[in-house]
Amino acid sequence: MALIVQKYGGTSVGSPERIKNVAKRVAKFQAQGHQVVVVVSAMSGETNRLIALTKEVAASPDPRELDVVVSTGEQVTIGLLSMALQDIGLRAKSYTGAQVRILTDSAHTKARILNIDEAPIRRDLQEGKVVVVAGFQGVDEKGSITTLGRGGSDTTGVALAAALKADECQIYTDVDGVYTTDPRIVPEARKLDTITFEEMLEMASLGSKVLQIRSVEFAGKYKVKLRVLSSFQEEGEGTLITVEEDTNMEQPVISGIAFNRDEAKITVLGVPDKPGIAYQILGPVADANIDVDMIIQNVGHDGTTDFSFTVSRGDLDKTVRILDGVKAHIGARAIESDKAAAKVSVVGVGMRSHPGVASRMFRTLAEEGINIQMISTSEIKISVVIDEKYLELAVRVLHKAFGLETA
Amino acid sequence: MALIVQKYGGTSVGSPERIKNVAKRVAKFQAQGHQVVVVVSAMSGETNRLIALTKEVAASPDPRELDVVVSTGEQVTIGLLSMALQDIGLRAKSYTGAQVRILTDSAHTKARILNIDEAPIRRDLQEGKVVVVAGFQGVDEKGSITTLGRGGSDTTGVALAAALKADECQIYTDVDGVYTTDPRIVPEARKLDTITFEEMLEMASLGSKVLQIRSVEFAGKYKVKLRVLSSFQEEGEGTLITVEEDTNMEQPVISGIAFNRDEAKITVLGVPDKPGIAYQILGPVADANIDVDMIIQNVGHDGTTDFSFTVSRGDLDKTVRILDGVKAHIGARAIESDKAAAKVSVVGVGMRSHPGVASRMFRTLAEEGINIQMISTSEIKISVVIDEKYLELAVRVLHKAFGLETA
Repeated sequence: MALIVQKYGGTSVGSPERIKNVAKRVAKFQAQGHQVVVVVSAMSGETNRLIALTKEVAASPDPRELDVVVSTGEQVTIGLLSMALQDIGLRAKSYTGAQVRILTDSAHTKARILNIDEAPIRRDLQEGKVVVVAGFQGVDEKGSITTLGRGGSDTTGVALAAALKADECQIYTDVDGVYTTDPRIVPEARKLDTITFEEMLEMASLGSKVLQIRSVEFAGKYKVKLRVLSSFQEEGEGTLITVEEDTNMEQPVISGIAFNRDEAKITVLGVPDKPGIAYQILGPVADANIDVDMIIQNVGHDGTTDFSFTVSRGDLDKTVRILDGVKAHIGARAIESDKAAAKVSVVGVGMRSHPGVASRMFRTLAEEGINIQMISTSEIKISVVIDEKYLELAVRVLHKAFGLETA
Repeated sequence: MALIVQKYGGTSVGSPERIKNVAKRVAKFQAQGHQVVVVVSAMSGETNRLIALTKEVAASPDPRELDVVVSTGEQVTIGLLSMALQDIGLRAKSYTGAQVRILTDSAHTKARILNIDEAPIRRDLQEGKVVVVAGFQGVDEKGSITTLGRGGSDTTGVALAAALKADECQIYTDVDGVYTTDPRIVPEARKLDTITFEEMLEMASLGSKVLQIRSVEFAGKYKVKLRVLSSFQEEGEGTLITVEEDTNMEQPVISGIAFNRDEAKITVLGVPDKPGIAYQILGPVADANIDVDMIIQNVGHDGTTDFSFTVSRGDLDKTVRILDGVKAHIGARAIESDKAAAKVSVVGVGMRSHPGVASRMFRTLAEEGINIQMISTSEIKISVVIDEKYLELAVRVLHKAFGLETA
């Protein structure tokens, strides 16, 4: 008998019919003797509908109240799934984030989980109940409802699995696993049976939308066995995300090509080339809770330098406003921004022991005439920022250059 | 400076535009120096949409989970109204029923308020905030979300007004006050400036949908000054619901004609005419939380009697099933039921001192050939059950017979 946490995304619970299918799948696991905790997202489209409503009543909705509105999406799903489970003869009980007491900080719309009281859930499981928990939400010390940000339901699932010391956390989605790249762009893309946490982290953070990055971090940190599966297929093992590197000699150097369209590039021109300038520029940006991705500082000349970084497109205007505010203080000549950027990356733990990955990547892009605007590297990935219009082309040629279509 | 509790129903908050209008109205009251607590219902149509969803996933949705789903309707509205208030420069904070801690019993979908912790709301008011509370919902001792049943938002408003010792509880609705009867049936129906709690109680319980009956009971019990107003008119004093009877000599004997289409009649035939039979019949019905309205027991003959009562039509099938279960035990000959019943009543505190109301009512109906099936009287009302098809006719002729079109 195992304790399994299953997380179903918005598409998997997108209609009453699909919710009933999820109930049947959960029943199958329970019939096998497993204890099951189910984490669900809002029905697909619901969160967007709610956000649209808020924009109709307020130009810039208050984050606390935004969370009050948006968190209802998951609350509807937990009630519906619980009654669907009861309807087929199971015992089930729903919990909102506040009811579990998933304690978070007070950073509304982007809250982080501080603690989970898993005792009531454990009691329900021991009584033979299926426990259904609202993903994406929690409660702060003041009792205000918080949300974890988009994709936060994955994080809820993994955090619960960690708190309950679950045997496995299964993330059900509309794809049947993690692919070498997006099959919509490269039809030859191949499903991976396993991928390491590190690689998954790079793939997720780079825009492979299968799992939310924080959930992968969490899973790695707390050694939660994580599996990505399709909620629309009866069979299939999905992709297991492993702590250990595959020791197979035949393991390919590169596991996949990741990409992210949601990149905006900002360049601060002509700042004084002196210690502390990076902090002066990025400190106010971080204070506004804006995630900065790639950061490049050019070698200076004439005592000044140029400083570039990327943020999500949704954060661009806010970031530019912040920098305009500190421009005089830091002595910058100008702020430039570009919304039409995109990032493409090759990812693989194998590159640690295989030199030449970077040069092959750069040569491949050069042969297609694709200009590289920024480069950033880590032990297991190389990322470049390019003009968005070349994104699909870049992904296709890199997938082929690294032989990913064949295992 | 007064403390005002304002309750806005589903139609009044039925669209983002209307929510913004409510925000403006609240702002006007605050600008006059008043402290304002706003209680809101779900946006019109939302509760029905949610209930429809539950019926698609489960044949007979679990009441606890039904409350989890349905309570999201009001939660969306409090968030939207709070951000709309902030958008026009006010400070505002939303509370779900659980966040206020509106403690109720655990009778899901029909819960009763046990206690309200008003201290946090009072603190917010003193800080100059508008407090926005979700109507219709509370939380039980176990932390489960409960709902008060349809129309429960009125009850929330009045209960909050009582707990806060508010100066007035204003119920905003889509009508501009309480009328002598439904103007859709009698165009000459007249708005009343005042009505007593007792009369309002009879009018509400008899199907004048302006206010939910429990809210009127509450208001009477805790001496909350209650006013019914239109949320669609800028001016107008609405109808004030008073503790005191109007001492005006010219006061009409009858205040209004109330009616209720939602009546189903059940007759238990040939039960032994002995003590305790009423309890044996109605005990199991009450245990199932079914409200029984009119009750008639005929004079017995041959040692048996017939026992009739009315319930809401939605409860009819359940009631018949319950009675079929106890039929043998109580020794009844048969159970008959009739869905096409309707109740019409004349209401007025004036009838206490004016005899002849009953005879005028019965004569008026007889002149139109309308058969009376059941009669029930109280100090301030006379109700009759008639065939539903005569309902409009009965209301029209009674309104005229009691001279209600002229003040």
